[in-house]
Parts: sequence; structure tokens; C-alpha cells
Amino acid sequence: MDTERRQTIEYKFLRQNTHHPVPKKRYTFVIYLALFHVAFVVLMGFFSKYDLSNKNGTSNSSGLYAILFHFCFIILFALFTKYDPIYGQSQVPGLYAMFMDVHSMMFIGFGFLMTFLKRYGYGAVGLNFIIAAFVLEWSILVRGWLEAGINGEADFTINIKSLLVADFCAAAVLISFGAVIGKASLSQLIVMATFEVVIQGVNELIGLHYLQAYDVGESIYVHVFGAYFGLAVSKVLQGTREIESTKESSHYHSDLFAMIGTIFLFLYWPSFNSAVAVDEGQTRAIINTFLGIASSCVATFIISLLVGKGRLNMVHVQNATLAGGVAVGAVADMQIEPFGAMIIGTVAGIISTLGFQFLTPTLNETVVHDTCGVNNLHGMPGLLSGIASAIVAATATRENYNGNRLYVFYPSRTPMSNSTEYSNFSLDLTEFSRGGMGRTAAVQGGYQMAALAVTLGMAIIGGIITGYIMKLPIIEQIQDIEEMFDDEPNWLTPEDYSLKLTEVRVQNRESEEEMQEKRVLHTST
Amino acid sequence: MDTERRQTIEYKFLRQNTHHPVPKKRYTFVIYLALFHVAFVVLMGFFSKYDLSNKNGTSNSSGLYAILFHFCFIILFALFTKYDPIYGQSQVPGLYAMFMDVHSMMFIGFGFLMTFLKRYGYGAVGLNFIIAAFVLEWSILVRGWLEAGINGEADFTINIKSLLVADFCAAAVLISFGAVIGKASLSQLIVMATFEVVIQGVNELIGLHYLQAYDVGESIYVHVFGAYFGLAVSKVLQGTREIESTKESSHYHSDLFAMIGTIFLFLYWPSFNSAVAVDEGQTRAIINTFLGIASSCVATFIISLLVGKGRLNMVHVQNATLAGGVAVGAVADMQIEPFGAMIIGTVAGIISTLGFQFLTPTLNETVVHDTCGVNNLHGMPGLLSGIASAIVAATATRENYNGNRLYVFYPSRTPMSNSTEYSNFSLDLTEFSRGGMGRTAAVQGGYQMAALAVTLGMAIIGGIITGYIMKLPIIEQIQDIEEMFDDEPNWLTPEDYSLKLTEVRVQNRESEEEMQEKRVLHTST
Amino acid sequence: MDTERRQTIEYKFLRQNTHHPVPKKRYTFVIYLALFHVAFVVLMGFFSKYDLSNKNGTSNSSGLYAILFHFCFIILFALFTKYDPIYGQSQVPGLYAMFMDVHSMMFIGFGFLMTFLKRYGYGAVGLNFIIAAFVLEWSILVRGWLEAGINGEADFTINIKSLLVADFCAAAVLISFGAVIGKASLSQLIVMATFEVVIQGVNELIGLHYLQAYDVGESIYVHVFGAYFGLAVSKVLQGTREIESTKESSHYHSDLFAMIGTIFLFLYWPSFNSAVAVDEGQTRAIINTFLGIASSCVATFIISLLVGKGRLNMVHVQNATLAGGVAVGAVADMQIEPFGAMIIGTVAGIISTLGFQFLTPTLNETVVHDTCGVNNLHGMPGLLSGIASAIVAATATRENYNGNRLYVFYPSRTPMSNSTEYSNFSLDLTEFSRGGMGRTAAVQGGYQMAALAVTLGMAIIGGIITGYIMKLPIIEQIQDIEEMFDDEPNWLTPEDYSLKLTEVRVQNRESEEEMQEKRVLHTST
Repeated sequence: MDTERRQTIEYKFLRQNTHHPVPKKRYTFVIYLALFHVAFVVLMGFFSKYDLSNKNGTSNSSGLYAILFHFCFIILFALFTKYDPIYGQSQVPGLYAMFMDVHSMMFIGFGFLMTFLKRYGYGAVGLNFIIAAFVLEWSILVRGWLEAGINGEADFTINIKSLLVADFCAAAVLISFGAVIGKASLSQLIVMATFEVVIQGVNELIGLHYLQAYDVGESIYVHVFGAYFGLAVSKVLQGTREIESTKESSHYHSDLFAMIGTIFLFLYWPSFNSAVAVDEGQTRAIINTFLGIASSCVATFIISLLVGKGRLNMVHVQNATLAGGVAVGAVADMQIEPFGAMIIGTVAGIISTLGFQFLTPTLNETVVHDTCGVNNLHGMPGLLSGIASAIVAATATRENYNGNRLYVFYPSRTPMSNSTEYSNFSLDLTEFSRGGMGRTAAVQGGYQMAALAVTLGMAIIGGIITGYIMKLPIIEQIQDIEEMFDDEPNWLTPEDYSLKLTEVRVQNRESEEEMQEKRVLHTST
Repeated sequence: MDTERRQTIEYKFLRQNTHHPVPKKRYTFVIYLALFHVAFVVLMGFFSKYDLSNKNGTSNSSGLYAILFHFCFIILFALFTKYDPIYGQSQVPGLYAMFMDVHSMMFIGFGFLMTFLKRYGYGAVGLNFIIAAFVLEWSILVRGWLEAGINGEADFTINIKSLLVADFCAAAVLISFGAVIGKASLSQLIVMATFEVVIQGVNELIGLHYLQAYDVGESIYVHVFGAYFGLAVSKVLQGTREIESTKESSHYHSDLFAMIGTIFLFLYWPSFNSAVAVDEGQTRAIINTFLGIASSCVATFIISLLVGKGRLNMVHVQNATLAGGVAVGAVADMQIEPFGAMIIGTVAGIISTLGFQFLTPTLNETVVHDTCGVNNLHGMPGLLSGIASAIVAATATRENYNGNRLYVFYPSRTPMSNSTEYSNFSLDLTEFSRGGMGRTAAVQGGYQMAALAVTLGMAIIGGIITGYIMKLPIIEQIQDIEEMFDDEPNWLTPEDYSLKLTEVRVQNRESEEEMQEKRVLHTST
Repeated sequence: MDTERRQTIEYKFLRQNTHHPVPKKRYTFVIYLALFHVAFVVLMGFFSKYDLSNKNGTSNSSGLYAILFHFCFIILFALFTKYDPIYGQSQVPGLYAMFMDVHSMMFIGFGFLMTFLKRYGYGAVGLNFIIAAFVLEWSILVRGWLEAGINGEADFTINIKSLLVADFCAAAVLISFGAVIGKASLSQLIVMATFEVVIQGVNELIGLHYLQAYDVGESIYVHVFGAYFGLAVSKVLQGTREIESTKESSHYHSDLFAMIGTIFLFLYWPSFNSAVAVDEGQTRAIINTFLGIASSCVATFIISLLVGKGRLNMVHVQNATLAGGVAVGAVADMQIEPFGAMIIGTVAGIISTLGFQFLTPTLNETVVHDTCGVNNLHGMPGLLSGIASAIVAATATRENYNGNRLYVFYPSRTPMSNSTEYSNFSLDLTEFSRGGMGRTAAVQGGYQMAALAVTLGMAIIGGIITGYIMKLPIIEQIQDIEEMFDDEPNWLTPEDYSLKLTEVRVQNRESEEEMQEKRVLHTST
């Protein structure tokens, strides 16, 4: 009886092993990826050259544009000024080390964070790897073109900061990946990455360049954008179907692998938020992020114990502990004071943990399926950060920032060159010599909110459009729930792969359902 | 027969699953942690501000002090001078990168090092996470108050070095955690952290400020202190009862997770020992630690093979390989020569491996239970380092240190301003302009020993007091040995968690005990 | 029936557990290692001192030489000039951070990359640990003597760059380790390391100093050398016997551990290739490596999908993705343009993936067994890099390098001091004041090829000699295929170690072979 059942299940699992034939469309993807990669190489040859100065060079420019990017091109030409001077400053000693920290967050941090899925470890770290590498190449091109377009130049330069920005861009795509992981084919993911890089780049350009809304830690332009873009894609892909799979959970060791990702994200978040900050703003960004993320860690443990009826939940520890890093992001270099950073981090930790506990299970069933709960880790804390940035901007005074230093952190508030303030404040620094936009604190706060709203809009609309493109019949789809959250359809798997699941199934079933039955049987033997 | 046994054991394991009800006192802990966290935020608001200079600022100061810290306050006011000028020097380029290395050691290094326990992986990395985050917040406050108290100021500043010092302080607490891991409740651990941060801070203040005993790699003030504090706590908690649990061992993969911790600690130890060193002392500290820890690695493999009768032991490789980093610590920036560093590292590796092999099993049964063997990795190598620091100090000459440079590394030996040497040596450097304490080499050696003795005393007495506080009936205790070294009482566990243990038990029992029996049974079938 | 089989296999596994008795020769090894380590300490005492300047000091020198190193000594004295001035430049800010990145690659990167073997995880990370630590000590001595010999001095200095070079040297040995992992005893591995460090050092000296062939990322001197040295050793050790073991494969989680290694190697490769680069060459090296390795990652996924018939292969993802870092190495700091780096990386990724898929399985059976496929990851991409370096050198013009900057990157092309060009180009920089060798571009290209050829020859001949030394009867050998790729002969193993293999064997056999049989049996019950 016992053996018979095992045999049946084993038989089933053997069948499963072969019931994931490789769809023909996967080869379409290979061609797509190969063509794209070749195109990248050619495009690099045409447009890019090294920037070997010791400056974080604002680049030069691009005349030819690939057909694919027409839509961003239109926006670009409509608008025509120079990038914010904050980007033209001299490379801080240690930029390379900070870039490396951020680089680790992308590949180790995001890659291992998602290995919590017991049957999707290869996919988590492996697909994360190819998506990130693809985005690094693609975003250097896209960002280069955008800058070049603005500066009216024909090609662009690459420096360490270009690589750093490419990593930020990868962050947005990997956050979106978190929303759809296990439910989208590799082909779909690369298509998503292709579009998201462009839309994210255009949105950040609008926010930073035209709205002059500041976000040193990319909470608005990366976290909010990535989360809601990914959720919009997920919604379009799955519609209202309910996705329930026993594979969407963890094993003991898969949770430990995930903690590698969590800890690396925790460690290097101060670098993420401070890498592009300047002067004393960089020190503040490090301290604020350090305190903010430590606070969200403490808050998460408190709330997790409460909602878990005295038991901690690994999902919370792996994710919500990091919410403080997101929430502090948009104001990290501002004069928010250490306790301010701690309050923001604490609130983020609480919201995020409650989100994982109560919100996501409901949303998954009723609105949109969110595999990693990106709404809790990136979405809501990002919104919090955006709102905080508006409040902080609206209350920033010359006194807070030691007089004229205010205009380093809020360049848009620099008085206009024909104003009385301009002459009174003796703004003799070169960068202010041309005068500014003369915004008031309240107006700047409004622009921060505007950037948040534009980002939400671009993310959701962009995600919906991208989602429909991903559903085009020429692209491989995953429809069968059995194929979701499973490495088998995508990877050659080792001998113990199929075994593990079966074993747990068999033994759990035996121990839970049949304890009674077996007792009867054996006493009668 | 076979199935019946399995069924019985499975039944037992199912029962176990529910026989760890959550104790009511765990909620007391949640309230405690929440109140503390809120208090931290408020206190940060009152006392802290940014230090945005490019200096490793010695701070400003504090008037209000929480009731809890009265006892350190009394000691503080009794003594009243300025901090050692070594802390006032300009921030080395790369301090941030070194801080990040040390930061990694706390969260990845210590966290994963302790995952070797097959059933306590969540606890190792998860509780390490919350304890470290809690300590980072708390120690910035405590250290800030201590500095402020000394300088007679009302509040204190935070800079990158404050974050680094907070990580050092976390190291002490995490070492103590290693002594009691698996045997103390989360509530008890947070209580331990709360007291240890204060006592460790006061002890370091006494050592560095009043005794002027130097310890660049914190071997005395962190490693010796943390190890013996933890052991004192463990003694008080468990008394003389014998703790024997099959769960206090590793699985194949849990050992590999632990190696992640080991390797990161190994890699970044040079940063730990050199982060606060100055000038050529920093280069020496890097080289000495690199050579010292490589030597302890080689020595450990040699001794492990010998005592293991030709087989290596993972416990040694995970731990004793690192002893050289501890042992070189207190003299890392001194002129000990490369071969000196190697001798110290080799001796430490030998002592530590022998400790793990012979000493700990005996001590565990007779004196005090030491889960991770912190006496071997931190205690004895730390004592070795302290003694080495006394010998090195007692033999340091002006010739060794290129003349006046001696006083950079031994400021207490700077001649008094009214002495003949003072005028002879033309000490025109600003920092020496006021003259020093004029200690001789031998006297400085004595002070190093005094600091070691004071640290031992403070650690043991402090640990005993803290241990008794942790045993207060309002705090959750772990008394049942079945609950020890097990994640189940603290965490929601995945489906394969209970399975793993059962399976091993069943199959081991079958294969070892019953081989005979089964053979008989089946031949008769 | 079912149980009987299990019992038999369990019995077999129990027997296996004891059928790896520790060979007596292992103790010879312990003595060897201990003597060597003591010798290192003594030698350090005699020869080394700190270099505390802020310069990457070229050293001082050595009179006494250990007997073992006679052969390199002869070559050394035969040749007598100063090291290339590129090594005498001021330490770049951030060298320490870059050194730490490279250091991580050795211990985390190589260590975990090899944990893919399901039964050799302890060996991968543990033996990697001891080999690397041993080499760090030994290579500082060897490199120091070599430099000292050249400069005609009696001892040598140690600075951060010495530690970095020791890590490069460790890379060569760890690559060779990859070829023989699981098939060589620990004693043999240490013997291999001892000789390889010397031969590799002499080869690099010939290449850099006498041939003046440049290789900033060590693709020729480390990757090509390490790979073919290791393969030559493997050939000598195993001859033409066929090695087939079910243990030479992965488990699901062992593949995830291996990905930790892959990702860290991927992340820090830009530091590896740029650490010793200078000025704008360093920026170029970072950008080129970043783009090259990202390209090999993308190319690997494309080819892996194609050859895997639509399924990805973890072996490719773990290894071939990194080939771009190797292939760009020798030209990383040159003006190859971003798209040039991408083409090189793409070609390397393709070659490497195809090598893992088609070449290695054939070579393993017919020519030489290559456990980790080092020919694919280090060998062929290294050769590609060497050839690329010749082409790039042969086409380098003054125009490409902004005039006289050419001579910073190709010092051998500096015009001779009595030439017309010398006066025309106004080479007033100090380092060029003495004039150069006046090589043409084509001649320099030829020297690059010569260095590649010399390296191949030294590696293969050196490897064969070392292999025969490793087969001396006084050294422990592994001959039984059952003992290969298995931790049990070297390590004390935990309770679940033997279990895992058995279990998989039992259940696989049952499910695959006996499905039919069991069905019959049970229906008849």
C-alpha cells in the first residue's frame, strides 16, 4: 500500500519530467537575444567612446537612432536643455568602490534574494544574471542616447558613472522581475527588459531634467517605477486567474540562500543611496541610510513577531528589513537628521511587514499576483519616500543648509540671476554664476509630488503596454500552472531535483493524511 | 515493521511540531524591543547631529542621560580628560570602503559562520541580523554619550567613524552570542546586547583613555571582552547542567553555509585590524593581519590533520583558521615584522585548533557550555594578543620607529614638556607640542597588561550580572533541551524542516541498529 | 524486495564509510606542510621588511636562496635589468579596495565555484582555502626573491601591491587546482602549489621583464599558464585511464553554492583586470572588462539554449559566462573601444560554451581529464586574449593613444635616446628620459606572441615535471576511482553525508529500473 502509493507518485513525477517539452518559440527568443546582442555591439561601435577624464563627464551625443526608440526620441527633441550640474562634478574618491557595492546588490543581492523559491533557485539566480547583464549593455546605450540627444551631440562617452547608472537601471528591471518571477518565460523577460529600460530612462529624464525633482537614492525613479511597472505587467500577463501552486514556497536551505541576498542588499544599501550624492550630502546619505535600514530591520522583527503570534516569518526577515533603505532613498542626502531617518525607516518596516502579512495574500487573489511582494518592499516604501521628499523639500530653508549650500542640494531654488536675492547671497560659485529657476520651497515640494505622480503613471501605462507586447503570440508564454515556479522547463536539472519534491509530497501525505489508515493496516498485518 | 517504526517516529515528530507553544513572555519581549526602538529614535533626536566635516570628529556632548546608564555615567564623571589625539586625525581615503568590509564581517561573516548548526540556520543568520541592527543603533547612542560626557558637551556628532565603531561594538556582542546561541531566547539576547554595549563601551573607555593601552584591532576590547562576557552569561544561564543534544551538530550543506561566513571573515580581517590605524601603521596593520591570518589557516590545517588522525575537521577549518586575525589584532600596526606576525598567527592557529579538539568538549561538560567555541576563536587568541601587545610595547624603541614616529604609535611615551628629551627631540609636530606622559617602554607594557586584566574582570563580572538579569522571571527562558538549537520554537518553518531530521533519524537507526534484524526478517519472508 | 535492496545498498554504503582508511603517507604530508610553514616564517624573518612608503616600491634583495629554487636563480642572474617603470608609479587611491576585490575572487570566487561537485563541497571550499593561504605566503617569498635577484639586493619589501601579486599568483594555482580537483591528494596539491608558484613567477618575469610583453589582466601569465599547467599535471597523474564516476556531477543546492562563486568572480573581474593598470588605462580596463564579461554572459546564455535544445545548462552559466573577463584581460587597458571589448567577450563566451558542451566530454575520454573544464574557462579564452594582445599591439599608433601617451602603455616602443624621434617628440617625462628600446608596433606584436608561446611551453613542461614529482611514491596518491570526487577520504563527515548519496541511488534505481517489476509484484500481492 505504502509502496504502491509511492510508485504512483513516482510515476507521476517521471511523467512530469517529460511533460515540459521545450516550446518551439524558445528558439525565436534565442534569435531575438542574439540579434539584440549583435546590435548592441554594432551600436557601441557607432556611438560610444571612452571618457577617460577624471570628471563624471556629461557626454556628447547621437544622430542615428534605432527605430525601436522612436517614441522616446520624440519626447527628447520636444524638450531641450542641459543636464543638472550635479552630474558634472568631479568624481569622488571611492566612486569605484561604491559602484562595486551597487554592482554586488544587483547580482548577489537580487539574484539570491529570489532563491527562496524551493523549485526556482536556478531561475532566480540564473535568469537574474542574464537579465542584469542584458540590461547593463542596453541601458548604457539608451542612457547614452538620451544624454546625447539632450546635448545635441552625435555620440556619447562611457565612464565609471555610466556603469553605475546602468546598475541603477538594472535595479528597476530586477524589481519588476520580482513581480513576475516564475510566471514569465525567459523570452518575455528579455522583452520586458528591453522596453522597461527605455521607459524608465525617459521617465527619469523627465523627472530629473524637466521637473528637477531630486531623488538621490532612486526611490522614485527606480523603486516605485520598477515595482508598479512589474505589477502592471503581471496583471496583463495573468489577468484575474488565480495562481495557486505548492511550488510557490520555500525549503529550509532555499531560505538560507535567500538570506545571502538579503544581507548583501542590507549591507550595501548605504552605497546605493549615496553613490551619486555630493560633498556633505554623501556623508549624510550614508548615515541616514545606515540608520534608516537598521530601523526597518528592528521594526520588521517586532511586527513579524506580533503578526506571527510569537513566531518570526522568514518572508518578512528577508524582505521587509530592507524597506528602510528604499524609504530613505529620495531624501537620503538631505538634512533630515538621524532621528528623522530612523522614523522613516521604522514606518517603512512596519508598512512593509504588514503588507507581506495581510495585503499581498489578498491582492494575489483579487487584484494582481506579486511573486516576491515587490509592492511591499519597493512599491509602498518608495511611495513613502516620494512623499517624504516632497515634505522635506517644502520645508527646506537656507538656515538648515548653512546658507548657500542649500542650492547645492536644491539647484532649482537658486535665485534667478536678475533677482535681488541673487546679488545679496553673493553666489560667486561658478556653478551658480548663471542663476537658477528661483523656485520656492513649496513649489519644489510640488514638483517632487509631480515627479512621483508622473512616475506612477509612466510605470503603470508603460507596464500595461509592455505586458500586451509580452503576450504577443510570437513570444513564448507560460500558461500551465504546473510549469510555474519550476526550473524544469528552463534548465537541465540534476538527479536530486525531481526527487526532493516527490519525497516531501510522499512523506507529508503519508504522515498527515494516512497516519490513521496505516495504523489500522499494520495492526491487522 | 519498517513502516511501523517510521510511523511511530513520524507521529512523534508531528507532536514535536506542536509541543513548542509560544510562551506568553515572548510578547513582553516585543514590547521591550518596541519601546527601546522608539526610545532610540527619540534619543537620537535629542542628542545626535551630523558631523559633515572631513575629520573623524571627536564630538560635542550630553546632559540628559537615561536612567539605565547611570552606572557608566558615574565612572565617566569621576574621570575627566580628552580622548587620544589618534581619533582626531583626518579621515583616510578609503575609510568608507574599510567600514563596508567590517560591516560585511558582522552581518555575513558572523551570521553565516553560525549556520553550521543543522537546525538553527534561521536563528544563526536571522537573530544575528536583529541583534546586530539593534546594537548598531544602541551603541551609536552609548558611545556618543560616553564621548560627550568626557568632553563636557551636551550632544554628539555622527560620522563614518561612528558607524565603524558601532560595528566593532556589534562584534563584541555577536561573539558573546556565539557562546549562548541556541540556548538563550531572543528576549534574553536583546537584554544581553543592551547591557553588553554599555559595559563594553565603558571598559574600552577605561582602557584607551585612562590606561592609554593601545589595541588597534580591538583584540582586547572586543574579542577578549566579548568571549568572556558571553561565557560568563552562558555559565549563569545554564549552571552546571549538562547540555547534550543531537541537534548541536552540522549537516553537509549547513557546513557549506558556515564556510561563507568563515571566508568573509578571513577576507576582511585586514580591514578590521587596520581601519582605525594611521599613516604607515595602517599599511603595517594590513600586511601583518594578512600574514597572520594566512599563517593561522596553514597551522590549523596541519593540526587538524594530526588530531583528526589524518582527516580534516570542518569545525577547525571554519573557526581556528581565523585565530591569527584575532591574535595579531592588538599589535597589528606595530613594528612586529612580517615573520613576527606569522609566528603569532601560527601559535594562535595551533592553540585554537587544540582548543576546539580537546578543551571545549571537556569544558562543555564540566565548566561552561560554549556553543561556537568562542573561547578558542576569540578568547585565547585574544589573550595571546594582549600579552603580545605588552611584550611589543615593553620592547619598542625610538630606533624601531624611525625616531619621533614612536610617539605616533605610543602617544603616552611622548616626553613631558618640561623634560630634557622633549627639547632634544625637537618635537615640533602640533600634536606633541603640549608634551605627553613620558612613560617608559616597560611602564607602557605594564599598562597593556593592566588593560587586559581590567577587560577580563569587567567582562566576567559584567557577564555574571547580565546573566542574572537575563534569568529574571519576566524574561522568556529556554529550559527544555529539546527546544535548544532548534529553529522551530522561534520561526515559522517550511515543509521540509521537520522532515529532514526525522528522515535522518529513521534511516540512521535502521541502517545502524537494525541491519541484523532486518536481514533475519527478510530472509524468513 | 524493496527493503531488501535498500538494506543491501545501505550495507554497501556503511562499508564504504570505512573503506577509506587514512593512508599513512598523509602524515608525511603533514610534516611537509609544517616544515614548509616554519621555513616560510624563518625566511620572512631573513628577507622581508615593510615597505611603508606610499609608492608601489620595487624592492631591494636576496643573497641566500633555498636549494629548491636554484633553477630560477640561474635564469635570474643570467639576466640583469630594472623592472618596468609601470610598477614604480604611485599607489592609486583605491588600490586597497581593488586588492580586496581580487582577494575575494580567490577565496569566495574560486572556492565556491568548485562546490558544484555534489560530494566534494568541503574539498572545493576547504582545499581551495588552504592552497590559497599556502600560496599567499610562498609567493610573497618567491616574488620577493625574484625581484631582489634582479635588483641585486639582499632582501625585499612588502607593500599592498605584494599582497595583490600574491593573489594573482594564487589565481594561477587555483586554476590548475580546477583541472585536478577530486583526483589529487592534499599532499599532491601542496607539492603542485610549491612548484607552480616558482615556475609561474619565473615565466612572468621572462615575459614582463625580458620580452616586455604586456598583459594587464594576467590572461597570459595567469590564465593560460594555470590552465595548461594544470592540464599537464592531470595528464601525468591519470595517464590515459578513463575516469567515470557518478560523483562527478552536481546536486540542486550544490549548483546554487557554485553560483555564489560565479557571481563573485563576475562582479570583481573589472578589479582583477584593472588593479595594476595606470592612469586612463585603469578606467579603460574597468569599462572594457565590464562590457566584455557582460557580453560573454549574454553569449553563453544564447549558445547554452541552442546546444541544450532549448534548456539552459548550469555548467555553462557557472563558467562560460566569465570567459569574457579572461579574454579581455591582456588588452583591457588598451584603446580597443567598447565595441571591441564586447566582440572579444562575445567570441570568448561562444568558444567557452561550445568547449564545455562538445570539447571537454571528448577530451576527458581521450586526452586528459579536466574536472572543472579549465581549458574552456581559462585556457582557450586566455589564448584568445594573447592573440588579441598581439593584434592590438601590432596596430597601436601614436594617434590612438594621444601622442606620447602611447609610451605609457607600450614602454618598449619609446624611441631610443639617440634617435630623431626621441628629440622630435619632446619626451621630457622623467620616465622616458633615458630613452627606450624603440620597438615598432609589429615587433611589439611579435613579442606578445612570443610571450604567449613561452608561457604555453613553460606551463606544459613545468606541469609535466611537477606531475611526475607528484607521482613520487613518498607522496599520497588517489588511485581508486571510488575515492575520487568524494570528501569522505579527507574529511570527518556529518550524519547526512552518506545518507544523501544512498538515498538518491536507491530511489533512482527503484523509480527508473524497477517501475515495471514493482507493478507486477504489487498487483500480485
